[in-house]
Order: sequence, then C-alpha cells, then structure tokens
Amino acid sequence: MSAEDRLIARFFKPIATDPGALGLSDDAAFLKPPAGFDLVLKADAIVGGVHFFPDDDADLVASKALRVNLSDLAAKGARPLGFLISLALPKEVGEPWLEAFARGLGSDAALFGCPLFGGDTDRISGPVVVSVAMFGAVPEGTMVQRAGAIAGDRVFVTGTIGDAALGVMMRNGKDWKLSAPQRQHLLSRYLVPQPRNALAEAVRAHASAAMDISDGLAGDFGKLCRASGVAADIDVTRVPLSDAAKAVVTADGGMLDTVLTGGDDYEIICAVPTSKALRFQDAARAAGVTVSEIGEIKTGEGVRFLAADGRALNFRHASFSHF
Amino acid sequence: MSAEDRLIARFFKPIATDPGALGLSDDAAFLKPPAGFDLVLKADAIVGGVHFFPDDDADLVASKALRVNLSDLAAKGARPLGFLISLALPKEVGEPWLEAFARGLGSDAALFGCPLFGGDTDRISGPVVVSVAMFGAVPEGTMVQRAGAIAGDRVFVTGTIGDAALGVMMRNGKDWKLSAPQRQHLLSRYLVPQPRNALAEAVRAHASAAMDISDGLAGDFGKLCRASGVAADIDVTRVPLSDAAKAVVTADGGMLDTVLTGGDDYEIICAVPTSKALRFQDAARAAGVTVSEIGEIKTGEGVRFLAADGRALNFRHASFSHF
Repeated sequence: MSAEDRLIARFFKPIATDPGALGLSDDAAFLKPPAGFDLVLKADAIVGGVHFFPDDDADLVASKALRVNLSDLAAKGARPLGFLISLALPKEVGEPWLEAFARGLGSDAALFGCPLFGGDTDRISGPVVVSVAMFGAVPEGTMVQRAGAIAGDRVFVTGTIGDAALGVMMRNGKDWKLSAPQRQHLLSRYLVPQPRNALAEAVRAHASAAMDISDGLAGDFGKLCRASGVAADIDVTRVPLSDAAKAVVTADGGMLDTVLTGGDDYEIICAVPTSKALRFQDAARAAGVTVSEIGEIKTGEGVRFLAADGRALNFRHASFSHF
Repeated sequence: MSAEDRLIARFFKPIATDPGALGLSDDAAFLKPPAGFDLVLKADAIVGGVHFFPDDDADLVASKALRVNLSDLAAKGARPLGFLISLALPKEVGEPWLEAFARGLGSDAALFGCPLFGGDTDRISGPVVVSVAMFGAVPEGTMVQRAGAIAGDRVFVTGTIGDAALGVMMRNGKDWKLSAPQRQHLLSRYLVPQPRNALAEAVRAHASAAMDISDGLAGDFGKLCRASGVAADIDVTRVPLSDAAKAVVTADGGMLDTVLTGGDDYEIICAVPTSKALRFQDAARAAGVTVSEIGEIKTGEGVRFLAADGRALNFRHASFSHF
C-alpha cells in the first residue's frame, strides 16, 4: 500500500459512509439517484491566502470548504447527497494537519448528512487548495433559480449580513474597540460559515427565486434581480445586523458599505410571493432559521438600497470579485 | 457584470450545452439522472509543475484535466454525462491563456459528449490547479470495480504501456537518439492522454474487474489484484509497447522498469473470464481500441511479471506516488 493509500484509508475512508463509495478503494464511486429527483451540482474551491489564512486550523478549513458548497445547495432548495474532494497540499502539510482536516470534514459530513464519495490528493508548490464538488437532490423540476422573482414579491434574507467581511478586516489588523464576544463573533463568522440547509425545504416550497450571498449582499442580489428581469427596493434599516456589526457601523458609518457589499456571508436571499410570505416565515421559525424581510421586488431594473432618510446609497464596489 | 462573470460568459458558457447548466448563470446546475442508471462519480485534479509543465499549451492542459477523469469512467464501464471544474489561476494567466484553455475544454467536451455543468475560478499565488469532478452513468448495479477478478480470468490491457513515462523523461532532457516521429509519439502520449471511452461498454459487458492505469502498470494492477483477492502472472514479453518505447528499451534495458511502473498511461487493464474473452476482443475491434492479452489471474496473492527467460522481475518502485 502506498503512503497516499495509507493516508486515505486512515483519514478519509471513515467519512465515506455510503456503500457506493466502496470505502474509497476503487477508482470511482457510484450513486443511486433517488427516483423522481433531479441532482443539483455545485463546485467551489477555497485557496489558502484567499479564502482562509494559512494558519487557520485545518478542521475549520475543511468545514469552510464543505460549507460554502452546502450553502449553495440550501439556496437552491436541495438536500445534500454527498461530495467529492481534490486536495492540493504543500510539502509543509503533514499528517497532523491532514488528521485535523479529516476530523473537520468528517464532523460536517455527518452534521449535514453529506458523505464523501471520492477524490484525490496532490502535492503543490503553493498554497493549500481544497476543491469540493457537491451534489444534492430536489424533486424533479423544482430547483430554485436566480430567475423567477416577480414584482410584488417580498425579499427575505437569513441570519445577519456583513459579519464575515468585518471579521476578515479584524484578522488583517483592524480594531474597532469591540468587546471580546463581539470580536469573537465577527472572527468566527469569517472562519466558519453557517449554511442555512435547515431552510432548504422552505425555500423550495415558497421562494420564487433564491441564491446564497457569498460575494456581498448588494452585488449578489443585483445578480438575482438581473436574472429575474426585475428591480427591487431594499430598506437598509431592515437589513439584519449582529450586535457586533451594529457596534462597528455606529463607530464608523463608512463600514455600512463594507457590510452591504463584503463577501463571505453565506446567507440566503430569496424572493417570496406575498401570498406565501406568512407560510415561509412559519416554516423558517420551525426550521430554527432567522429570516428578515428587507424589501420588495419591483418592475424595471436596478436595486435601490434606501437609507433611513429615503435616499439611495451608492457603493464603492458592488461586489467582491477575484478578477 | 463582474470581470469574472464576463470571462465565464465568454469562454465557458458555450461549453455548458445541457439545459440543466442554465448557461452557467446560476449558483448551481441540475441534472436529470437517466432512469435505471447509477451515477459514477470521479474527481481528479492536475497541478502545474506536477502533471503538466507550466509552458504546456493551455488547450492541452484542459484536455488532460478532462481526459484523466474520462479514463476512469471508461475503466468503470460508464458513459460520461458531464463535469464540474474549479480553476485556480496565478496572476500571470490572462485572457489568451483562458481562451485557449476553454477551446481545449470545449473541444473535448464535444468529442466525449461530456458538457460543462458549472464551476468556479480563483486567483492563486502558486501554480495553475485544474480540479475536475466528472459524473457518468452505468445501468444500475453494473459499475465495473477493481474487485471481481477470479482465478482463470485473462488479463487484457489497451493501447501501449510506458510511453508517457518515457515522454516526461524526454521533456526533462533525456535523449535516446530516437527518430523525430518516435520522439513526437512519446511526448504527445504524456501531453494528451487517449482515454479509452470507446471501450467502456465492452468493459462493462465482459470484464470481471477493471481500472485505468494512471500510476504505472505494475502498481495499479497490483491494486486490482489485492482488491480482488487474487494473484496474477503477467508475461512481460506480451505487454504492448509502441515502436518508440521498444527502441528505448532496446537501447537501454533499464528503461523496462520505467515502462512497467511509470505513470500517466491512461490505458485500461481488465480481467475477462475465458468464456467471454473472444467476445471482448471482438467488441474491442468493433470499438477501434487495440487490446492485448498479457497474462492470467491466479489464486493466492502477488503479481509476477515474468521475463522471456521465465524469471520474475523486481521493480525499483512499483508505482508512482505523490507522497
């Protein structure tokens, strides 16, 4: 058995709990697709120095790699079925790192009911790259898309917005004299996304359009509206902020821009017809996911973020981009 | 539209021909699994400086990324359905590289009937990393596994063995005074694998066990035999070599070790019951894929590579390993 095979058997085989994964002992895995369902497919990679800091704990790196993909499945109304992973690892990464990485991966695979089906590991003269491809299932023809919002729909968002963008600024040395719990909140929101998979079924049942917010509320919601061919008004005073984010914005009003356009929220934004809004809110409560109504879909094009005085905000950059 | 979205629309959207890919304009894609089929899942990444040279043409890098995965599907008896891709790109990689990459990707996606369903692009302070996750289909319960070979089965291999391992040595400066066509053959066999997807249905119909050879004939076939709980004798004189590889081995007998244990062959090795061997060979002929019978499955454990004089070879390293 090669060193690579030993590592796989020791660290990753326990996460490959589906019989179709064949204990990671074959070249490929098989999956029996549930009858009457469509598969939902998503691939997203995270790169050391871009999406996480090289000294972040390996178990949390694994969590983040899974959760950024789980978040997309949730926004599409899909339940997870499993994932594939490709790891590119620099020489400095040894068994202790891999052991912690596998621990985080296995913990989230169990938590989200999303077992490992296969993958590969390679050496790289560069940063750690974790590429995940995830597949989920929705009843045939029901994947919730960006397109589909219509004028009159209510706009809902889960959780709180902007924490992760502030958290990464703190990691880079920014200090707003927050309390220790506030600091911890922002840092952890960057480090470990909380994908809203508990809300997937409610989104599928009630939303006319949805997406997860990974590149900033303003930019991502703009994409949803363009795909749907609609406009929208967002009431900025109703955008849900954590206590920590409120404290930052109170201390430095310019940070509101960062909150509304920064990346890494991993919350769901969706449009829900008025006739379904109450049922959606009830379903969210039952799922234990906080949702806030923040605006309304309009005819036309463009999204206005309206401040307390009724004026529309102008952003420095609408959305995070790698290019 | 962000720069990233423009690149995707311009270069990658034309490859996303399945309606479920939604023109790459959504967060995820959907796929209607064919009724009565299992999905076959595979992820394999290639890394600049490891699996290809940084100055290799981008269209061929794209081809290689797809073909190493297509080769696994072929060996499992599966037909391709589509793929996801994650690209990590250093700053030096600009639009001309991406355009050529997308050209190669699109060309092979069409050739192998394997459209793009989605993916992502990131910047990296390191080499190009191309992570592909591919999914195929086999009639329910029929994925060909490594386990399944039984004593008495014939051992077949496709194409020729060892060319790529010699090709990469040439790329690194080795010179065996070959003819120009011979040099070209070995170089191209490393650069562009020729996955044997045309043989997938024959493998599925006739093989008791199969895998693709990516880490060397000796090491990979050893894995198949261990998974099947069998031994085997391979007749080294029957292992198919190209004219170029024969010329190298004639000039330098030590290179036989490299031929039999080097990586990147992307040929299929399979065990076929004697009762099916003729039909398998007929099906291979009909598919236009050369197959050679090179040995026999035995009871016990261990694979012997028997030279012309009947003695078993000892290898320096049985298999290529990244660790």
